[in-house]
Amino acid sequence: MSPCYRLIISCPDQVGLVAQVSQFIASHKGSILEADHHTDLEQKWFFMRYEIDAAKLTLNLADFRNQFAPIAQKFQMQWQIHDVSIPKRVVLLVSKQSHCLIDLLHRVQEGELFCKIPCVISNHEDLRKIVEWYGIEFHHVPIESAQKEAGFTKIENLLAQHNAEVIVLARYMQIMPHHLCQKYAGKMLNIHHSFLPSFVGAKPYHQAYARGVKLIGATCHYVTAELDQGPIIEQDVARVNHRATPEDFIRLGRDIEKNVLARGLRYHLEDRILIQGNKTVVFA
Amino acid sequence: MSPCYRLIISCPDQVGLVAQVSQFIASHKGSILEADHHTDLEQKWFFMRYEIDAAKLTLNLADFRNQFAPIAQKFQMQWQIHDVSIPKRVVLLVSKQSHCLIDLLHRVQEGELFCKIPCVISNHEDLRKIVEWYGIEFHHVPIESAQKEAGFTKIENLLAQHNAEVIVLARYMQIMPHHLCQKYAGKMLNIHHSFLPSFVGAKPYHQAYARGVKLIGATCHYVTAELDQGPIIEQDVARVNHRATPEDFIRLGRDIEKNVLARGLRYHLEDRILIQGNKTVVFA
Amino acid sequence: MSPCYRLIISCPDQVGLVAQVSQFIASHKGSILEADHHTDLEQKWFFMRYEIDAAKLTLNLADFRNQFAPIAQKFQMQWQIHDVSIPKRVVLLVSKQSHCLIDLLHRVQEGELFCKIPCVISNHEDLRKIVEWYGIEFHHVPIESAQKEAGFTKIENLLAQHNAEVIVLARYMQIMPHHLCQKYAGKMLNIHHSFLPSFVGAKPYHQAYARGVKLIGATCHYVTAELDQGPIIEQDVARVNHRATPEDFIRLGRDIEKNVLARGLRYHLEDRILIQGNKTVVFA
Amino acid sequence: MSPCYRLIISCPDQVGLVAQVSQFIASHKGSILEADHHTDLEQKWFFMRYEIDAAKLTLNLADFRNQFAPIAQKFQMQWQIHDVSIPKRVVLLVSKQSHCLIDLLHRVQEGELFCKIPCVISNHEDLRKIVEWYGIEFHHVPIESAQKEAGFTKIENLLAQHNAEVIVLARYMQIMPHHLCQKYAGKMLNIHHSFLPSFVGAKPYHQAYARGVKLIGATCHYVTAELDQGPIIEQDVARVNHRATPEDFIRLGRDIEKNVLARGLRYHLEDRILIQGNKTVVFA
Repeated sequence: MSPCYRLIISCPDQVGLVAQVSQFIASHKGSILEADHHTDLEQKWFFMRYEIDAAKLTLNLADFRNQFAPIAQKFQMQWQIHDVSIPKRVVLLVSKQSHCLIDLLHRVQEGELFCKIPCVISNHEDLRKIVEWYGIEFHHVPIESAQKEAGFTKIENLLAQHNAEVIVLARYMQIMPHHLCQKYAGKMLNIHHSFLPSFVGAKPYHQAYARGVKLIGATCHYVTAELDQGPIIEQDVARVNHRATPEDFIRLGRDIEKNVLARGLRYHLEDRILIQGNKTVVFA
Repeated sequence: MSPCYRLIISCPDQVGLVAQVSQFIASHKGSILEADHHTDLEQKWFFMRYEIDAAKLTLNLADFRNQFAPIAQKFQMQWQIHDVSIPKRVVLLVSKQSHCLIDLLHRVQEGELFCKIPCVISNHEDLRKIVEWYGIEFHHVPIESAQKEAGFTKIENLLAQHNAEVIVLARYMQIMPHHLCQKYAGKMLNIHHSFLPSFVGAKPYHQAYARGVKLIGATCHYVTAELDQGPIIEQDVARVNHRATPEDFIRLGRDIEKNVLARGLRYHLEDRILIQGNKTVVFA
Repeated sequence: MSPCYRLIISCPDQVGLVAQVSQFIASHKGSILEADHHTDLEQKWFFMRYEIDAAKLTLNLADFRNQFAPIAQKFQMQWQIHDVSIPKRVVLLVSKQSHCLIDLLHRVQEGELFCKIPCVISNHEDLRKIVEWYGIEFHHVPIESAQKEAGFTKIENLLAQHNAEVIVLARYMQIMPHHLCQKYAGKMLNIHHSFLPSFVGAKPYHQAYARGVKLIGATCHYVTAELDQGPIIEQDVARVNHRATPEDFIRLGRDIEKNVLARGLRYHLEDRILIQGNKTVVFA
Repeated sequence: MSPCYRLIISCPDQVGLVAQVSQFIASHKGSILEADHHTDLEQKWFFMRYEIDAAKLTLNLADFRNQFAPIAQKFQMQWQIHDVSIPKRVVLLVSKQSHCLIDLLHRVQEGELFCKIPCVISNHEDLRKIVEWYGIEFHHVPIESAQKEAGFTKIENLLAQHNAEVIVLARYMQIMPHHLCQKYAGKMLNIHHSFLPSFVGAKPYHQAYARGVKLIGATCHYVTAELDQGPIIEQDVARVNHRATPEDFIRLGRDIEKNVLARGLRYHLEDRILIQGNKTVVFA
């Protein structure tokens, strides 16, 4: 595969934006493999994502950054450029439930999700064996109600040591402290086992069962300080009927959770998600 | 088509129930065309629905009722038996939006929904022409904020005059008074333009847009005194992305609303719904 | 609404394409409302669609066409530019079944589908009344097996007289002659009542029933000389189970057909579809 | 959990069937937990499945079989009764692809699929490690084009040695010989990576890509001698657009395949599938 960059931009909308950016790329012999634009006409805000074939590009990544900076400044861009060949470092946090973890580990191993998992952190020992079978470090960090702070300090240190760029709460049954939500804002993904905003908080499948819904769902979202209120990345649902018990909801839900989380994480790893306030632009 | 009855039963679960009911039917030469059973193991409650080919049945409907009564009493059944050939009388309430109305009128005309619509009632004049084109009476009953009670009294009278057995709020933008909700409990269907319990109340598509959901939905439910809290009959969703404006939500939502309401009404007309507390058993 | 143009381009992929097109638009003060690009990396072919806010554009449509022509030529573009405010002229062909027809008429009337329907043509009289109620001309053109050619000549003349730009076979149960397929290539949409390529030809629901499938579908596609083989625009499915009879398949199928055809037609009317060989790029 | 039996019956439809069966069960103090009936009105054939709480049943399984036999004979039933607590013995056949295998192993380990896997057989060594990690025997049986017969004889012996009651082709890329299809008729499940009957045979995702479909699918079916023509158990689809490459089809397809196969196998393990000619009744 030839070298490839991803250029991600969001900024106030303005005439001539696309022209300048595409002109810059073309003038340095960059070929655009995949291009997405979105203009939020209400907020007058512009979003774009380019995959650039860098085989003939006359700039390396450092030069690109330097030379593009004046354009970025002119248009007040928030922007990033990534070398596609460098995997993001993803730390998974889990509790006892294995379905999301195993699903993600398998997808990473198969190359479907392109990333590096330096370690998995859990408040229980249960999943150590399978994690280590995949050749990944496993850290048991208990979160005891009397000493939550100590536990999360340990987690914070582990994240730092492993240079975590992305954190995935793969059915991690603990509420992250505010300062960690802020520190990893837009980089921490959670899978919530309901179709948000329905059934926030604990035991959503039991809540759903009690309400008598005919579809259950799962939601992948970025974690913010307010529980289950962060920007939604992806959702999906499955049909249930009067025969389904809460246990059936949980069983059916696992399949939705796995798939929704895997899709959400793939979008994140491929820089397909741009956050706009409490919403997301997802160039799926 | 040969004569056909529908027998609908709910009662405390007990050994021998199915045996007695099916024995009763078989002994009178009734042939079962479609049978549904459901046991709620938690509540120990039993639900069933039979479609009975009455061609060779040695009982007419009145005799069936008389002779089945002792069994029903023994098992403390709530039960009904219907002659399938008698259409239910359905009154539609609408405001200005036409999509659900036209969809239902077309399905009734085509024979897909088997019922009789004696009249349509609206708080606006807008939809008179299309209703009358279908040969159906149209009543304009304004609901003015100062005189809501007068309006609803008029509606109540119209419902009584037309022997309404089912009421469908087909995007009727008024809140029904409590006493009407009670009077027609289990007989008044609403279509709510959100995936309940998300986005109760007004402007649910705008609420959904503001929250940044990735799926929108609609819910058909029985109306109870508490707004948008009645037993859910049917739900469905459609995918939206960051490009979709609130207007797109509304456009996409119309298709979900139409289909969900039509399915819900069909289940009701075919006696496929048994209410259990604030939930439904739907023998779809 | 301020004036708006749609620019649709497909051409061999080349470095600098986007830069030149966007530079052209920006230099004439055009603001891009919606932009879609697609590069087929295998065929090395490029597709784009721009919605351009023309409020401040310093070119009228004729000038745009003239001045853009050299760029178009340089890149060997197939291209079109449309004034969004001019509705396309759509002729509907129907037989006896009303569901797609009524659905489309309602959507057009409500403004959901922006087009002008100069007439409806049918080989039966059945749907005259509803068409005329919508204030649209209805032409009965019988297609008798001995005189098919005469019928289609009449249809061809009607299409010409009404300046048909788009033809929709809304459950029209006749096979279009080859020369009409060619004359209106990429402009004639059909709804086929199966999930193509399954169940080509007649009675697809009965074929599906006989095969015992668990999902049924419908397909909107462009008509080509080869029956049911044209480029697919849109498809959808619905779940069926062992209880469903062929009549249930037909009933459930109607809802899929309506929605799939309406979506396909909307994409076409909004110039969202670019044909590539026997496939479509749909900027949905 | 109290003891539980499953009674599965299919026979010509006749008045009094349900009455006799339910009377038999009630008279021996059996309580019905879940009941499904289906009458195929066209073929005049009857299907039923009961889950019977055997806690108070006055018959053991052998007695049930003996005493029910006369009823079964009278109504010409094909019937089975199973003790729910006895897991079926399932042998998995795989090639190199791991997604279905790992998915099934995980579901079995978690108790979601209740069965015993005595061994996994593969024509490649690739998946030995993960299978053995789950504590399951792995047999490598090469299928070389010159000596296919020898390979399948070895497989047949392994199936016999392990008392295989169910065989799952979990992306096994070999065509089973006719005599094995017959020997395990109604007991051998395959997952085909297309929405059958579309795209029979090899490389269905590439076929689907070439045809330009907008949805891709997967099908779980019983294996019969005719390739990909057996009774369909379960199907599902996922949406694709013009951006999706054949590799994307394959990636998206894996998720459908896993879920469809897991659902199909669960139905089979729970005796929810009754075969009727080339179709299935699935009491899901």
